[in-house]
Amino acid sequence: MAWTGPGHDSLSGAGRRRRGKTLALHDEIVDQPDAIARLLNSNMSPLEGAAAAIRDGSVKRVWIAARGTSDHAAIYAQYVLGVRHGLPVGLLSPSILTVYGRMPELAGDLVIGISQSGMSPDIVGVIAAASAQGARTLALTNDVDSNLGRSAELVMPLGVGVEFAVAATKTYTAELTVIALLSTIVGGRTEDMDEVCRIPELLSYALVRDAEIKQIAADQARHGLTRCIVIGRGYDYPTAREWALKLKELARVFADPYSSADFLHGPLALVEPEIPVLAVVHDGPAIDDQLILLQRLAVEFGAPLCVISDLAEARSYATWSVAIPTSIPDWLRPIVAIVPAQLHALRLTEAVGLDPNRPRAIRKVTHTR
Amino acid sequence: MAWTGPGHDSLSGAGRRRRGKTLALHDEIVDQPDAIARLLNSNMSPLEGAAAAIRDGSVKRVWIAARGTSDHAAIYAQYVLGVRHGLPVGLLSPSILTVYGRMPELAGDLVIGISQSGMSPDIVGVIAAASAQGARTLALTNDVDSNLGRSAELVMPLGVGVEFAVAATKTYTAELTVIALLSTIVGGRTEDMDEVCRIPELLSYALVRDAEIKQIAADQARHGLTRCIVIGRGYDYPTAREWALKLKELARVFADPYSSADFLHGPLALVEPEIPVLAVVHDGPAIDDQLILLQRLAVEFGAPLCVISDLAEARSYATWSVAIPTSIPDWLRPIVAIVPAQLHALRLTEAVGLDPNRPRAIRKVTHTR
Repeated sequence: MAWTGPGHDSLSGAGRRRRGKTLALHDEIVDQPDAIARLLNSNMSPLEGAAAAIRDGSVKRVWIAARGTSDHAAIYAQYVLGVRHGLPVGLLSPSILTVYGRMPELAGDLVIGISQSGMSPDIVGVIAAASAQGARTLALTNDVDSNLGRSAELVMPLGVGVEFAVAATKTYTAELTVIALLSTIVGGRTEDMDEVCRIPELLSYALVRDAEIKQIAADQARHGLTRCIVIGRGYDYPTAREWALKLKELARVFADPYSSADFLHGPLALVEPEIPVLAVVHDGPAIDDQLILLQRLAVEFGAPLCVISDLAEARSYATWSVAIPTSIPDWLRPIVAIVPAQLHALRLTEAVGLDPNRPRAIRKVTHTR
Repeated sequence: MAWTGPGHDSLSGAGRRRRGKTLALHDEIVDQPDAIARLLNSNMSPLEGAAAAIRDGSVKRVWIAARGTSDHAAIYAQYVLGVRHGLPVGLLSPSILTVYGRMPELAGDLVIGISQSGMSPDIVGVIAAASAQGARTLALTNDVDSNLGRSAELVMPLGVGVEFAVAATKTYTAELTVIALLSTIVGGRTEDMDEVCRIPELLSYALVRDAEIKQIAADQARHGLTRCIVIGRGYDYPTAREWALKLKELARVFADPYSSADFLHGPLALVEPEIPVLAVVHDGPAIDDQLILLQRLAVEFGAPLCVISDLAEARSYATWSVAIPTSIPDWLRPIVAIVPAQLHALRLTEAVGLDPNRPRAIRKVTHTR
C-alpha cells in the first residue's frame, strides 16, 4: 500500500503507527489526491452491474442505508442520481427493521448500503433483508470482507487503504467519487469520465489553502467559536452537513447544518452578531438566492460569515473565506469543496487545544442496531 | 369556529385578535384537544382514496415533500407506514426540481405534500410535477384553497382552524393525526380507530403538566440554557426534531437533534457536564438501549438530562423530567409526546424574557423555492 503523495509528509503505515498516530488525520486528509487516484484505477465492474440495471430500466427506484458521514454521501447520491438521471432516491431509516422488526418491501429496487467499516449491524441488516426480498443490492465499503460486503450482491470497494483516524475523511471523498462514477457509467458520456479523472488534481489545488485556513482557525479560536450555523443548498447541502459533523466530532463546536431553504423555515431566528454562519456557496442555478441570503446575514444580522466558494462575490460578504477552484462541474464540486472544510475542522481543533486524533467518546466503528 | 375547550382560556378568533395576539401560541397549544377532536369529526374521503390505492397494491412506494415542522410529520409517516404496513417512504429534496429543474420519475407512486399554509412554492411545485407525471398525489394542508390544495388529486384538510402563531403547534399534531388516520384506514382495524379517537383525551392529560414544565423552564433559564442536544429513537425521533426546532425558533437555543443511533456516530463528542441532553424515551422495543444511553450520559458524562417519558426508570436518570400518560400505543405516542415539548419551548422562551409570539426573523409562511 503506497502512502506516498506529492508535496506532503509521506510515511508508511508502520511509520505512522510508530509515531503514535499523531499524524493520522492530517495524513489522511492530504492523502486524498492519491487515494482517489488509486480508486479511479480500480475495477469498476460492481458499479457497471448496478448501472446496467438502471440503464435498462429494470431498476427505477433507489434506497440507501447509511449513518454518520456515510449518510452525507447518501444525500449526495440523492442529488446526483435525481438531477442527472431523474432517479428517485430515498434514505432508509434502519431502525424500522432493527428496532421494530419490519422491512419495507423493496423488491425490484436498488438498495445501496454505505459504510466505511462495513460493520454497522443496522446497515448490514437492511442490506441482508433487501437481498432476501429480491432487491438488487450494492455495498460501498472500505472492507469487502466485512459483513456488509458479504451481504450484498454487488460490492464496490472504496479502495483508499485503511483509514486510521476516527474522523472519516478520505473514505468520505471516496464514497462521493464512487457515486459520481456510478452516475458517469449510467450516463455513458466520456466527457463525464474525463471530469471525474480530474478530481485528484482538483483535490491537490484545494489542499494548498491549508496555510490560510490555519490563520482563519486561529482567529476564530481567539474569538471563542463554540456555536455556529452551517448552510448549503442543493449539491452544497451534503458538504454543509459533513462540515458540521467534523466540527462537532473534532472541535466540539455546536455546528448546526441546514439547507438554506429549511434554514429560512425557522432557524434563521438563531442568527446573532456573535454567532458565525459558515456557508458553502457555489456558482450555479441557486446562486442568486444564496447571494441575497449572504448579504442579508452579513448586513441585516451582522453575522460573521465564513464562506467556501468559487465565486469572489460570495466571498466578498465574508469575514473569513476560502476559494476553491472554479470550473468544477456542479455535480462533482462536493468532492472538492469538503477538503477545505476538513482542513478547517482539523485546524480549529488544534487551535482550541484539542487532539484531532483522539476525539472524545467516539470510536472508529460504531455498533448501532 | 369554536375555540372553546375545557379548563383553559377560550376566546373567539376576533377576541384573540383584539387582545393583540399575545395569547396566540399558548392558546393554540391548549386548543389541541379540541382541534384534534374537530379533525376526527371531519370528512375522511381523501384519505380513503389514498388508502384504497395502498390496500389494492396499485401504490407500492410513498414519497413526501415537506419543510420545517411539516418535515417532521414526514419522518413520522416514514415510521408509521414502514413499521405498520411495510411501505417504503422516501423524503424528497424539492430543490432537485426547483433549483436544478429535474423531477425524479414517480409515476405510479403516491406523493404526499405536507404544508400548513399550502403556499410554499417548492412543495407546490413538486406536487404539480408529480401529478403531471401520473403519480397519485395527496395534499395535507390547513388551507384547501391554497396552491397546494389546488395542485393535488386528493386534499385532506387539517381541519384545526386558522393557526395564528408563527410557530406551528396544532397544525403539527393535526398533520400527525392525519397520517395516523391514513394508517388506520389502510389497516382497517376498529381497535386502531378506537385508539386514535382517544387522542384528544390524551392531549388533555399531557397539557396538565404545564405548571411543572414552567418550573423546569425557570430552573433551566437560571442556569443559562443556550445549547443542548435532543435525542429520540424510532417513533420518538420526529418528536426530538420538532422539540429542537421549537427551541430554536422561540427560545433561540442551539438545540441539536439526533436519532440516538446517529448520535453515537460522532456527536456524542459534544456532551459535557454543562450541556443538557433532552431526551424523548418511551417503553417499547428500543427501551433497553435507551436506558443504557441515559445512564451513560448521566453517570459517565455528568450531563444534566431533561426527559419526557412514560417510564419512571427513564425519568429517574434525569435532573428534570415530565411524565406522559402510559398505555399509549407506540405509533400514536408522537402525537401526545410533542405537547410537553411545545409547552417547554413556550415556557423557556418566556423564562428567558423573549416573546413567543414574535420569534425573530421568521414569518408564518416561508416562500422558499
